[in-house]
Amino acid sequence: MTAAEKTFLSHPFDDDKLKEECGIFGAIGLADAANFVALGLHALQHRGQEAGGIVAHDPQKGFNSAHRFGYVRDNFTKASLMESLPGPLAIGHVRYSTAGSKAAVIRDIQPFFGEFSMGGCAVAHNGNLTNAESLRRELIEHGAIFQSGSDSECIIHLMARSFQKTHADRIADALRRVEGAFSVIAMTRTKLIGVRDPLGVRPLVMGRLGDQGYVLASETCALDIIGAEFVREIAPGEMVVIQDGKIESSRPFHPATPRFCIFEHVYFSRPDSQIGGRSVYETRHQIGVELAREAPVEADLVCPVPDSGTPAAIGYSHESGIPFALGITRNQYMGRTFIEPTEHIRNMGVRLKLNVNKSLVRGKRVVLVDDSVVRGTTSRKIKEMILDAGAAEVHFRIASPPTAWPCFYGVDTPDRGKLLAARMSEDEMRDWIGVTSLKFISLDGLYRAAGEAAGRNAACPQYCDACFSGDYPVAPSDQIGKGFEMKAAE
Amino acid sequence: MTAAEKTFLSHPFDDDKLKEECGIFGAIGLADAANFVALGLHALQHRGQEAGGIVAHDPQKGFNSAHRFGYVRDNFTKASLMESLPGPLAIGHVRYSTAGSKAAVIRDIQPFFGEFSMGGCAVAHNGNLTNAESLRRELIEHGAIFQSGSDSECIIHLMARSFQKTHADRIADALRRVEGAFSVIAMTRTKLIGVRDPLGVRPLVMGRLGDQGYVLASETCALDIIGAEFVREIAPGEMVVIQDGKIESSRPFHPATPRFCIFEHVYFSRPDSQIGGRSVYETRHQIGVELAREAPVEADLVCPVPDSGTPAAIGYSHESGIPFALGITRNQYMGRTFIEPTEHIRNMGVRLKLNVNKSLVRGKRVVLVDDSVVRGTTSRKIKEMILDAGAAEVHFRIASPPTAWPCFYGVDTPDRGKLLAARMSEDEMRDWIGVTSLKFISLDGLYRAAGEAAGRNAACPQYCDACFSGDYPVAPSDQIGKGFEMKAAE
Amino acid sequence: MTAAEKTFLSHPFDDDKLKEECGIFGAIGLADAANFVALGLHALQHRGQEAGGIVAHDPQKGFNSAHRFGYVRDNFTKASLMESLPGPLAIGHVRYSTAGSKAAVIRDIQPFFGEFSMGGCAVAHNGNLTNAESLRRELIEHGAIFQSGSDSECIIHLMARSFQKTHADRIADALRRVEGAFSVIAMTRTKLIGVRDPLGVRPLVMGRLGDQGYVLASETCALDIIGAEFVREIAPGEMVVIQDGKIESSRPFHPATPRFCIFEHVYFSRPDSQIGGRSVYETRHQIGVELAREAPVEADLVCPVPDSGTPAAIGYSHESGIPFALGITRNQYMGRTFIEPTEHIRNMGVRLKLNVNKSLVRGKRVVLVDDSVVRGTTSRKIKEMILDAGAAEVHFRIASPPTAWPCFYGVDTPDRGKLLAARMSEDEMRDWIGVTSLKFISLDGLYRAAGEAAGRNAACPQYCDACFSGDYPVAPSDQIGKGFEMKAAE
Amino acid sequence: MTAAEKTFLSHPFDDDKLKEECGIFGAIGLADAANFVALGLHALQHRGQEAGGIVAHDPQKGFNSAHRFGYVRDNFTKASLMESLPGPLAIGHVRYSTAGSKAAVIRDIQPFFGEFSMGGCAVAHNGNLTNAESLRRELIEHGAIFQSGSDSECIIHLMARSFQKTHADRIADALRRVEGAFSVIAMTRTKLIGVRDPLGVRPLVMGRLGDQGYVLASETCALDIIGAEFVREIAPGEMVVIQDGKIESSRPFHPATPRFCIFEHVYFSRPDSQIGGRSVYETRHQIGVELAREAPVEADLVCPVPDSGTPAAIGYSHESGIPFALGITRNQYMGRTFIEPTEHIRNMGVRLKLNVNKSLVRGKRVVLVDDSVVRGTTSRKIKEMILDAGAAEVHFRIASPPTAWPCFYGVDTPDRGKLLAARMSEDEMRDWIGVTSLKFISLDGLYRAAGEAAGRNAACPQYCDACFSGDYPVAPSDQIGKGFEMKAAE
Repeated sequence: MTAAEKTFLSHPFDDDKLKEECGIFGAIGLADAANFVALGLHALQHRGQEAGGIVAHDPQKGFNSAHRFGYVRDNFTKASLMESLPGPLAIGHVRYSTAGSKAAVIRDIQPFFGEFSMGGCAVAHNGNLTNAESLRRELIEHGAIFQSGSDSECIIHLMARSFQKTHADRIADALRRVEGAFSVIAMTRTKLIGVRDPLGVRPLVMGRLGDQGYVLASETCALDIIGAEFVREIAPGEMVVIQDGKIESSRPFHPATPRFCIFEHVYFSRPDSQIGGRSVYETRHQIGVELAREAPVEADLVCPVPDSGTPAAIGYSHESGIPFALGITRNQYMGRTFIEPTEHIRNMGVRLKLNVNKSLVRGKRVVLVDDSVVRGTTSRKIKEMILDAGAAEVHFRIASPPTAWPCFYGVDTPDRGKLLAARMSEDEMRDWIGVTSLKFISLDGLYRAAGEAAGRNAACPQYCDACFSGDYPVAPSDQIGKGFEMKAAE
Repeated sequence: MTAAEKTFLSHPFDDDKLKEECGIFGAIGLADAANFVALGLHALQHRGQEAGGIVAHDPQKGFNSAHRFGYVRDNFTKASLMESLPGPLAIGHVRYSTAGSKAAVIRDIQPFFGEFSMGGCAVAHNGNLTNAESLRRELIEHGAIFQSGSDSECIIHLMARSFQKTHADRIADALRRVEGAFSVIAMTRTKLIGVRDPLGVRPLVMGRLGDQGYVLASETCALDIIGAEFVREIAPGEMVVIQDGKIESSRPFHPATPRFCIFEHVYFSRPDSQIGGRSVYETRHQIGVELAREAPVEADLVCPVPDSGTPAAIGYSHESGIPFALGITRNQYMGRTFIEPTEHIRNMGVRLKLNVNKSLVRGKRVVLVDDSVVRGTTSRKIKEMILDAGAAEVHFRIASPPTAWPCFYGVDTPDRGKLLAARMSEDEMRDWIGVTSLKFISLDGLYRAAGEAAGRNAACPQYCDACFSGDYPVAPSDQIGKGFEMKAAE
Repeated sequence: MTAAEKTFLSHPFDDDKLKEECGIFGAIGLADAANFVALGLHALQHRGQEAGGIVAHDPQKGFNSAHRFGYVRDNFTKASLMESLPGPLAIGHVRYSTAGSKAAVIRDIQPFFGEFSMGGCAVAHNGNLTNAESLRRELIEHGAIFQSGSDSECIIHLMARSFQKTHADRIADALRRVEGAFSVIAMTRTKLIGVRDPLGVRPLVMGRLGDQGYVLASETCALDIIGAEFVREIAPGEMVVIQDGKIESSRPFHPATPRFCIFEHVYFSRPDSQIGGRSVYETRHQIGVELAREAPVEADLVCPVPDSGTPAAIGYSHESGIPFALGITRNQYMGRTFIEPTEHIRNMGVRLKLNVNKSLVRGKRVVLVDDSVVRGTTSRKIKEMILDAGAAEVHFRIASPPTAWPCFYGVDTPDRGKLLAARMSEDEMRDWIGVTSLKFISLDGLYRAAGEAAGRNAACPQYCDACFSGDYPVAPSDQIGKGFEMKAAE
Repeated sequence: MTAAEKTFLSHPFDDDKLKEECGIFGAIGLADAANFVALGLHALQHRGQEAGGIVAHDPQKGFNSAHRFGYVRDNFTKASLMESLPGPLAIGHVRYSTAGSKAAVIRDIQPFFGEFSMGGCAVAHNGNLTNAESLRRELIEHGAIFQSGSDSECIIHLMARSFQKTHADRIADALRRVEGAFSVIAMTRTKLIGVRDPLGVRPLVMGRLGDQGYVLASETCALDIIGAEFVREIAPGEMVVIQDGKIESSRPFHPATPRFCIFEHVYFSRPDSQIGGRSVYETRHQIGVELAREAPVEADLVCPVPDSGTPAAIGYSHESGIPFALGITRNQYMGRTFIEPTEHIRNMGVRLKLNVNKSLVRGKRVVLVDDSVVRGTTSRKIKEMILDAGAAEVHFRIASPPTAWPCFYGVDTPDRGKLLAARMSEDEMRDWIGVTSLKFISLDGLYRAAGEAAGRNAACPQYCDACFSGDYPVAPSDQIGKGFEMKAAE
C-alpha cells in the first residue's frame, strides 16, 4: 500500500464518533443482481465508507467479483464495472475497517470467497468475532493460509475444514465455532443464505421484489431504495436459505435471549430505517423528549450538532417548547477524508465541515444536542466555535449515556483509556469541554425512548448496551487474553 | 473531451433546480495565499460544483495556476498541487457552467489570465454578460483569439485593447463596455482588485485576517472558514484595489439603483452567510412564517424537502404550530453525479438521494416545504414517494413565487418553455404535480421576509426578481437578438 | 476485473511468439533491498511483461508487498511506492501469465505469501507444475482455500501442511510433491532461499554485491544492472539458503540428468546474459553461422526480423559473406499492447511495430532471419510487407527447428493444433507463408551452436527440446489427464 | 502543473542527445481522419515524445481537439478518445518542447487553434522562429492575449491581425513576418494546408491514400504506416492547399537557396524514411563507410552504441572488414523517463538502459560507433561500462562532426558552453572521455555520405550545418539580442 493509500484511511476530521464497521446486502432471483446490490450498499454506505465489494454469479460466466476502496457510487455505478458482474445472484459488503487489521489493503475487503469441492461460496460478515485471534492461530497450525487481516476470513477456513456436504451446513458448522456478533450473508452458485448470531446483536432484514426476487440487507432503508417490500427481520439465531423463490428457515445454534445493539437506535442505523416495527427517527425524536424531561434548562434555542443530533434536537424542542433552529451549518461537499492534505488543511479540522450561523446564536442561550461523546475533542471544538460566534450560554445535551466501554462486536471504538467518560465524571467532562451545562440521557431513559416503557431490565437487559454499562453479553476472549479488564461484578 | 468527461457534466439527478454559476475568492497579504483561496472556494462550493481554478503569484516564482474538474476538496487540498501555487496573493473560482459554452472543457475554467505589457493579470468573474456575444464577434474581427467559450473571457480581451496604463484602469475600461451582472475579483503581481456591477446583482464581500491580510469573497461563509473578520460588502458599482494592507475605493461606473438578486436569499447563498447584515437562514425562516400566514392548512406534520427547504419548513411549523419532522431522509453519500452510469442506476433518479420515512408519514396529512419549483419533475417524484409511503394528504408549500422567467445574470435556468410556471396557473400546477394543495409565497411576502416591511416597491423594486416578475433590470441584448421576448409592458 | 483491464491482457500484435512466463529476483543484506529487486526485475522484464510484484521484509515494519499490472519501470520506480517496501530482504516476480488462469487478476500476481506458525514466507516461482491441477483438487478437499488461479499457489499450501520445523525444510517438502519445472526464490524474515528443479529446466543464478549482499536472479543481465558480481549458477536440484552473508547448499531431490531449456538460448534469455559460461549472443550468432552452412542461398542482403533475429542474422551474414542490413525498422515507441483500441488501430497489426526500408530492399534478393515460427501469421505479414516494398526474392531462415510441440514447463505456447509445424511439412510451410525458400536450423545444428560439438545425444539429450522433438523429460500428467497425446515412441 | 508532472518532463537518462522538437501530420478526405493522424504521429514519435495533440473537423460536429502529455499510443489509440475526434479532416503534432517555454503545460501542446471571422483554423508547427520574442512583445502591445509559452502561437496572432480574406492568405501573411525554420500544417473547415520555409530547413512530404485522400507528414515513414503512397516533398518556400482531392501550389515567399538540416540525416529522421529520394539508412551506412576511410584503426570488433549508431557501425564494419557485433544491449522496456523516481533509481543512469555483453568484449579491441557527442557525459559512462567489462582498447568513432554550436531552428541543444566540442579540441575530448582514440567524421565526409560527391560547397553550402560549422543561414535575432555571439567571419 502506498503512502497516499494509507492517508486515505486516516480520519483526521471525523475521528470522534463510534463507527459501525459494516453493511451487507444480498439479492437472488433478479436480473443483473449486482446492480441491486450496488444500490443497497449505497443506501448502507453510512455503515462503512472505506471500501466495498460485490461477488456475483452467473450460470454461464461463473463467479465474478470486484473489490474497491472508496464510495459505492464512485465504483459500482459504472457500466464497465457492473457489466463484469453478471447474473441473478449477488452479495456485497461495505466496510469501515476490520478489527484485526492495522492498515487497509485490498485483500481485506469482503465478501470473501472460497472454492470448495462442492463449488464456490462467498461470505459477507457484519459484526466481530471475539475469538478470531485464537481461531486464526489454530487454523494456521493446521495448514490454513490467511490472505487478509480480517477476523471474518476465519469463517471461510472453518467451512473448508467442515465435513458437512452442503455449503449451508458448512456455514452453520463454522459459525458454531465462532464467538461474538455476526450477521452473515453468503451465496453459492444457486443459494442466498442469511444468518444472525443467537443474540442478534447486528441487524439483518429480508425483503421481496417481483415474483421470485428476494433480498437480505442490514437495514430496511436498503429495501426502500430498490423498491423492495419488507418481509421480516431474520430472527436472532436463525439461518435462512433462499433458492428458486423458496425460503428455508432453520435454527442451527443453541437458543439465547436476544441482545440487539442499542447503539443502532442511537447512531448507527439510518433514521429512515425501521427496527422492530419502529422508525429509528421516532426513537431518536423520543430520546430528545426524554432528555428534555430528564435534563431541562432555560434557553433560547435548541440546535442540533449536524446531522446526527437533529431528530433528538427536534424532540427536545418539542418537549421543552424552546425553538428549534439550525445554528450550525454543515458543508455538504465535505467528503470522507483527504488524500495527502497540506498542513494548512490538516489544521482546519472541524471548520472544514461545520460553520456557526453567527447572527442566529449571538447573545443566545443555546441548547446543543449531539448523539454521543466519545473522546470529547469535537465537542470542545464545537463549543469554541459557538462561543466565538457570541452565544451567551452553551448547554450540551447528549442523546446517549456516557460511552465508557469499548465495543467488541463490530464497532470501531478507541481504547478504553481514550474514552472521555471512562476517565471523568459528568461534571469533570462539563468542565473539560467548557460548557455551561452537560447532561447525558440515562440508560433507563434511553430504553424508554426505544420502546421499553419500564426502562432497562437489569436482571436481563433487553439490549446489548456494553458500551454504556460494561455488561458484555459475550466475553471478549481475545481481548481478555491481551489484558482487557472486564467490569467487576457489582 | 472524452465521452466520460462529457457524462461528468450531465446532471441527471439534480436538474430541477436553478444553479448559481460561480463563486469567487481572493486573498492578499497571507503566506501561501492559495491555501486560503482553496478553503474559501470549498465554503463556496454550493455556487459551482463542476470545476475550480486558482491562480497564485509569488515574487520569485511568478504566476502559477491550476484548473481542475471536480470538487475543491478533491483537487486543491493535495500538498503536491498546492506547493505548485506559492505566494502571498491568489484568486480562485468555482463554476457550474458558463452561459456561452455547450460542453465543459478545461479551457473554460476560470480564473482567466492575460499577459499585458505592464505584467500579467488574472480575472475571476461571477455573473453573466448579456452583450458577450456581440462583444466577442467584434473582438474577433479585430484580431482577438478566444481560448474558451466563456463570456467572461471578453473582459481580458477588452483589457488588452485598453490604452490605460494600469491594470485597474484597464479593468474599469473593460467593464464599462460590458452589460449584465458581474462581481469580479482580479489580481496583478501586487494588487488584489474587486469590482461589482452598478446594480450589485451578485454579492461580493471583504474580510480581514491578521495584520496585512485581506480577502474578497462571494459570501461571508467563506470568511468564516478561514477565521477572517467581516469588514463590509463591496458596494454596487464600487471597485476596490488592495495592496500592502491598504484599500483604495473608486466608483468607475455611472450610478444606478441597486437590484441585488433576491434568489440569493431564497436558494443560492448558504444559510449561514450574512447579506445586508442579516442571516440568510433568518430570511428563509421568515419566508416559512410568511407562507404559513398566506397559505395555512390543517395538517399533522411539516416536512422539508431536503436540504434547502429546511429553514422555511421550520418557520412554517413555528408559525402554524404544526409539528416539524424530517419525513424525507437525504443520502449524504450522494455525489454530484455519476460517470458512465449503468442504465439501471440512471433510472433510479431521485431515489438514490431521497427516502421517505414510512412509519412517520403513514396516514398523516403532510405539509411539504420546498424552496422552488422549476420544471416540476422532482416535485412529482417526491409526491409519488410520499404517497407510496401512505401519506393521507400532501400540501406543497413553496418558499418562492412561481419561477416563470429565465435568468440572464449568471444563473443556469431552462428555456422559458420548460419552466412549469411559465406554462401553467397555480391550480394547473397543483393538478399536474398531483398534490392536495399547492401554494407559492407571494412576491410581496418574499420581500417582507427579506426585510422590506412594505413589500415590493413596484415603481422601483429593491431587488432583481426577474425570474419571478419578468422585470429585467438590464435588457438581455444577446437574447433579444436571438428572439427572446421580454414581458410586455403592463 | 473491468473490460478495460481485460483488454490490457490481450496481445493482438505480438501473439506469434512463445512467451517465457516469469522472471524472478531476490536480494538480501542490502539496504532497501526492494530497490535492487526493482532494478533486477526491470532487467528481466522480457521474461514477463504483464505484471510484477515485490515482497520486502524489515525487522521493524514486518512484511510489506505490492503487486501491480504493467511494467516494472511504471510502478516500482516511484518513491512513494518503494518507501512502502522497506528492509534489507526482498524478492520479486514478473509474469506473463500462469498456466492455470484464464484472465489476469491481481491475486494471480506473485510472489505469494503465507503466514505460518513459524513466521511469514513469500515465494516466487518461474516454471510450471505439470501436476498442479490434481494437487489443487487434493488440497481443496483437505481444506485449502486457493486465492489465485496460479499453479504456483500449490507450493504455499503444501508448505502449510508440512510437518517440518523450518521454512526451508517445508519448501523442500512441498517441492518434492510437485512435478514439472521450477526455479523458486523464497524469503522468510531472515533468509533468502533459492531452489532449482532436478532437471534444471529454468535458469537461476547467484551474485554478490558489497560485503554481505547476495542476490538470486533468473539471468545474469539482472546482476549486471545492479553491478553485482556473478558467483555461480544454482545447480539443478540444489537448494541454497542465504543468511547473514553465509550460504548453505543442499540437494533435497533425487539426482537426475540436467535438461536445461534450449529455447532460453534461442529466444527467452537476453543476448547479454551468460549461460553456462557462454554469452547467449554468441550462441545466437553461432546459430546463424550453422544456418548459413546448412541452408545457404544466393542473395543480396541478410536482414533480421527485429529484434530477436539480429544476432543470428549477423552470424549468417558473417558465414555467407552476404551483406547484413537493417531492412526492417522497429518502432521503438511500441508498447506492450493497447487498452480499448479503436477498430482502426486493431486492424493495423504488425504495421504499428515494423516498417520495411523500401529503397534498401527494392529489387533485392533478401534473406530474412527470424528466431522461430509459431503460428506463422506474423511471418506471412512480414513477407507481404517486404514484397510490397519490391524485394525480388524472400528467403526465410529460422534460427530454431520447427516448433511442433507445446511446452508445459513455464512457456506460453498455443495448442498443438495451432502450431504451424505440427500441421505442415517444411515445404508446405514455405508455400503457406509464400516465400521463395524457407529453412529451419536442424536440431543437431542448434546443439552445435549451443556448444555441443557432437550435436544432440539422442539417447540422453543434453537439453530439454520438447517443443521441437516432442521428447518431454517430465510427463505432463495434468495434460495427459485431459487428453493430450504424447509422441509415440519411435 | 504538479510536481509529478514536472518530473515527467525531465530527461535524466537521455539528456546527452540533440532532440528534434516536433513531428507534424495532417490528413484530408479520409473517413475518421484523426485515426490516420494518430498512426502518423505514432510513426513520428521519435521527433517528440513529451506530448501530442490532434484537432479534427466534422461538418456536423465542428472542430474537436485533444491534447495530452505522453506517447501517442497511450492516448490516441483509445476508442473513447478517438470517437470524440470525428470527421474527414484532421491534423496533429508531437513535441519535445518549445524553445520559449521553461516547463511543460498543457496549453503549450499544439496544434493551436484560432477562431477567425471566416471560421476556425488550427496550426501545427515544426521548427523554431528566431524572432518570436520580439514578435510576441509587439503583439502583446497591440492587444494579443497569449495562452502558451510557445513561439508558434505568434503565427495564430499574426493571422488574426491580417487583413486577408482567406485562411491561406492569412497564413502566408503571418509566415512572411516570421524568421527562422518552419514546416507548417494547418487546417480550416475544408482545407488542409502545408507550408515550408524558403530554406526548407525542416522536412515535409505529401502522400496519397485512396481516391480523395491526401496526407502531409514530417517524414515518409508516416506515410508507410498508413499505407499511403509517397507523392513528393513540399518544396522549400512552397505552400500547398488541398481541398476536395485537388492541390493548389503557390510560392508566397522570396526565393532562396535551400539549406535542409543535415542533422536529419545523421540522427533525427527515422532510418526507414526517404529524404531526397534516398534512404536515411543508406546515408548513415555510408557515413560509416566514410568514417572507416577517414579514421581507420586496428581492432577486433565494431559495436554500435544502440540504437542510433547501428547503421554507421554496419558501414564501418563493411568498409574496414572488422566484424560487426552487438556488444551493448539496450533494454527495450526503458520508457521515456520516470515520474517521481527514487534516489536509487535516479543514480542508475545509463545502466537502466544499456548493458555490455561481457563475454563478447572481454580482451577485445573495440570500435564503438555513436551518432554524435553533445555533452560527452554519456560517452564517458559507456566507456566505463565497456572497460569494466574487460575491453582491451576502446576506439570511439562518431558519425557526425564535432557539435560545437547550438541550433536555433527547432532542435533542443544545450547552451554553447555545455557543448564538449565548443570547449575542447578532438584530442582533449579523447582524453576527457578516456578512450584509446576518438575520431569524428569530417564535414566534407558527411556531405559525401549524404550524396554530395564533391563535399561541402563552402561558398554556398547545400545543407544547414550550423551546429557543426557555426554558419547560421538565418541570423538568430532574439538570441543575438540576448548576447549570443555568432562565429566571427573568417
